[in-house]
Amino acid sequence: MSQVQRMSRLMVKTLRDDPADAETLSHKLLVRAGYVRRTSAGIWSWLPLGKKVLDNISRVVREEMDAIGAQEVLLPALLPREPYEASGRWEEYGDLLFRLKDRKGADYLLGPTHEEIFTQVVKDQCTSYKDLPVMLYQIQTKYRDEARPRSGVLRGREFQMKDSYSFDTTDEGLVESYALHRAAYQKIFARLGLDFRIVSAVSGAMGGSASEEFLAPAAAGEDTFVDCPACDYAANTEAVTFAATVPAAVEPGPVEELDTPDTPTIETLAAHLGVPASATLKNLLVKIDGEITAVGVPGDREVDLGKLGEHLAPAVVELVTAEDFEDRPELVRGYVGPQGLKIRYIADPRIALGTAWITGANKPGTHARNVVCGRDFEVDDYLDVVVVEEGDPCPACGTGLKLDRAIEIGHIFQLGRKYADTFQLDVLGQQGKPVRVTMGSYGIGVSRAVAALAEQSADEQGLCWPREIAPADVHVVAAGKALQTELALDVSEQLSAAGLRVLVDERPGVSPGVKFTDAELIGVPKILVAGRRSAEGVVELKDRRTGEREELTVAEAISRLTA
Amino acid sequence: MSQVQRMSRLMVKTLRDDPADAETLSHKLLVRAGYVRRTSAGIWSWLPLGKKVLDNISRVVREEMDAIGAQEVLLPALLPREPYEASGRWEEYGDLLFRLKDRKGADYLLGPTHEEIFTQVVKDQCTSYKDLPVMLYQIQTKYRDEARPRSGVLRGREFQMKDSYSFDTTDEGLVESYALHRAAYQKIFARLGLDFRIVSAVSGAMGGSASEEFLAPAAAGEDTFVDCPACDYAANTEAVTFAATVPAAVEPGPVEELDTPDTPTIETLAAHLGVPASATLKNLLVKIDGEITAVGVPGDREVDLGKLGEHLAPAVVELVTAEDFEDRPELVRGYVGPQGLKIRYIADPRIALGTAWITGANKPGTHARNVVCGRDFEVDDYLDVVVVEEGDPCPACGTGLKLDRAIEIGHIFQLGRKYADTFQLDVLGQQGKPVRVTMGSYGIGVSRAVAALAEQSADEQGLCWPREIAPADVHVVAAGKALQTELALDVSEQLSAAGLRVLVDERPGVSPGVKFTDAELIGVPKILVAGRRSAEGVVELKDRRTGEREELTVAEAISRLTA
Repeated sequence: MSQVQRMSRLMVKTLRDDPADAETLSHKLLVRAGYVRRTSAGIWSWLPLGKKVLDNISRVVREEMDAIGAQEVLLPALLPREPYEASGRWEEYGDLLFRLKDRKGADYLLGPTHEEIFTQVVKDQCTSYKDLPVMLYQIQTKYRDEARPRSGVLRGREFQMKDSYSFDTTDEGLVESYALHRAAYQKIFARLGLDFRIVSAVSGAMGGSASEEFLAPAAAGEDTFVDCPACDYAANTEAVTFAATVPAAVEPGPVEELDTPDTPTIETLAAHLGVPASATLKNLLVKIDGEITAVGVPGDREVDLGKLGEHLAPAVVELVTAEDFEDRPELVRGYVGPQGLKIRYIADPRIALGTAWITGANKPGTHARNVVCGRDFEVDDYLDVVVVEEGDPCPACGTGLKLDRAIEIGHIFQLGRKYADTFQLDVLGQQGKPVRVTMGSYGIGVSRAVAALAEQSADEQGLCWPREIAPADVHVVAAGKALQTELALDVSEQLSAAGLRVLVDERPGVSPGVKFTDAELIGVPKILVAGRRSAEGVVELKDRRTGEREELTVAEAISRLTA
Repeated sequence: MSQVQRMSRLMVKTLRDDPADAETLSHKLLVRAGYVRRTSAGIWSWLPLGKKVLDNISRVVREEMDAIGAQEVLLPALLPREPYEASGRWEEYGDLLFRLKDRKGADYLLGPTHEEIFTQVVKDQCTSYKDLPVMLYQIQTKYRDEARPRSGVLRGREFQMKDSYSFDTTDEGLVESYALHRAAYQKIFARLGLDFRIVSAVSGAMGGSASEEFLAPAAAGEDTFVDCPACDYAANTEAVTFAATVPAAVEPGPVEELDTPDTPTIETLAAHLGVPASATLKNLLVKIDGEITAVGVPGDREVDLGKLGEHLAPAVVELVTAEDFEDRPELVRGYVGPQGLKIRYIADPRIALGTAWITGANKPGTHARNVVCGRDFEVDDYLDVVVVEEGDPCPACGTGLKLDRAIEIGHIFQLGRKYADTFQLDVLGQQGKPVRVTMGSYGIGVSRAVAALAEQSADEQGLCWPREIAPADVHVVAAGKALQTELALDVSEQLSAAGLRVLVDERPGVSPGVKFTDAELIGVPKILVAGRRSAEGVVELKDRRTGEREELTVAEAISRLTA
């Protein structure tokens, strides 16, 4: 049923230059090739070619979601405040949420994700254990008021997402629904031709327990993940959990004070004493819901405030200010040590029981050595809070980890009963008693997947789509005048009749050079050129990715393409 | 590739009772049959069955839009204020527009229709006459903050719409693009199985010249249209234009004052004088952008304020208040006549030159007769402002008109250059000079079409979809125990293998009676029952619409259904 799409009639205006505001490859190419157009900051219009790619991705997602028995629905994007108030997310989302009022002054929001509304739908539609398990999904427009929308459609404020939700009566059921989604996601991303890794993740604002991310490695990615070259361990850097190191074998001596003037930083201290930074203990002061707390890490490591925030959520973590020091004279800026301090002490697992450190002596210009964990100070909570670094030991096998940037293309969560508790989602159990439902939540960034695919597959000439996702199967170029155009249109009709999606460049008055450049930029996987040897019925078939070309008769070319 | 859909796994909960707030048939049935669920006032969730119907309608719309060469795009729903400020609609839409601010305080709106944004896209993408004509469309979520959202998905605040826009360099081109859309809409609505009429419409807030509406006659409709039983004239009541009536043949005498105490209304006056109301002239006072104006109509007719507003848009029309009368003592409430009044006078064409009337004498308790139009008073503007009534003469042939209620399912406009002027949308013309582009705008209410179809096709038992739109081709019912269930599943697999979309009701522990009732309610066009004679391999095939049933062998039933 596919019609031949003529370039002369397609609304596509290619650009030779990168848009001024574009930083990432996908942003540049999707704009230059006429796939998308910016309407407002982080808000994009999908032009005809872009819409086809978006639809192709959606189709793959739908097929695999249907295959695991998930049912498609369409919930609203404009949502009432009340359910999000009940779950706490009306507040928690902060500035990320677009909020508005209707003509009567009632509060609404534009949905960033739909756990609350799906929970209400299922509460309304399912009353018995016989109605479960149920998996529901939608492909829908979502909204997040990002502080810095950037990278084109990679991080928009309005974007397309597939979100699905599973509802089970038992924990085992949730594990099964989660596994079904995990397998479906693997199939989806493989069909999309994406290179991806599944990594452990932290659940963040979603709540819930187990969660994994699907990451597409790409330089433009905003996520960093660790990857073990020796085993199959991979994790979002925020989710890496290191084992505590073994206590030092030697018995350290008593605490000794050191005169260390003008050494308020680890660098100045290590230089002054001539010791490695790793021998020192760094203590960062933060406020957790307003309570001043010290966070101890080895001197050669940094505190990952994002990780700390994830561990402590929904508590709010802030850095201390100069005023906080003024209010608490016992805290000596630059010379804080955990020994004798009357505040909560959180430490990295490397600050293990029995390890000895050089740290602040809580006196100006003074440090102390032989300060032993467990003997001279106590740790209230061990948390993984250091910034992961290249070469850190793999938590699974000890090999030095690799750090890579990636785009988050999917995220799956075992939510558990958080939302079911909020909305009292119970069904009648097999024993005749109400059973609280347990949920999973699963997302794929559909518009983001377009950018991820572009990032991973493009080259210097332009975009380069896998066939299933490309806006056409073949791009036919009429490289010449009437004869070439006639042959190009004739071949196009034959290919279309054979079921292929054909884009033909028959623009009059456009040079072959411009047509070739546009074909490379647009990135349809096969390019068929009716050129020099058209009179003989010989065309050139080019593979967009490899650049391989061969001259074939029309019949050969058609049989090659339809094979 | 269709999978058999099992009722036991489908999220559908049918209800025996109508929802309390439902007034229209489609609202009641779509909720009772589990197609949609209310999330907030005028904001609906589409459940699995509803989503299928919505998709089926969208598919038909897409196919016919593609067939006329329109290109599908997807523009944002969250839109910046500036282009709507430029077109004047940021203000004109009033409370109908959902407005919001982002985290930086910038103004946004939720798109009610996209003329502004499409104009900008085309200005960006098309630069030469060679790039035109172009027709673009999207199927997208739209937002209007209706004062009284009601009738379920018939008039929602968030809804699905197909909107398209044509761009041409010449007026003839616009006429052609309009004709293409008109023909495509006829095909679409015919394929949807809708009974519809094309009627003349007023362009309203859209601006522009020619416009027609596609109306689906239905008792639940919010539009009224006139229909000539003798010729093919049909129009929205607001767009009916009557010819002026001929002047009275007799020469009336001079104006005479009549003592008519306590007759401030036409009813009291006509009764007091013993004349028909049609002999009197009724003068309604309104304010047009604040200026007091009288509107004259025959005493037996009503002023259609909507029609008046449409004629005078964008001027604002209001009724006068008691304070206005206090400020203007020359206006005697209940006794106003056009003779000698120093205000603008708008009249219905029936108040023709030379016609004589009984009307107010501008003195309390006093009327005048033999007040002749053109002799005793002047009409500043003739406008069609009376409420059209059943039996009014057809403007085309004079036959008495019929009045019917209908649902507006489509609207097509020749917009002209209104938006192109606002955004200076020019392309380089064939002569090398800039040419201003002319536009058309075309809409189909996709979610509303679901309700319109439900209204027109449902009966007392429930919904009753045309096959192309139905959520399945056949609804197989296992009316019995293991034997019937086995047969039902087996037949379902065979039908599915033959390419049919099958819904099978194999719910254990649900009585045949409940299954039959649900099947009638859900409204799939064919119902196949594995019942009493299952052991013999005999099933019953029922037509949902006609109720006709016949007993057939499984093989006969399958060949009947796949024919």
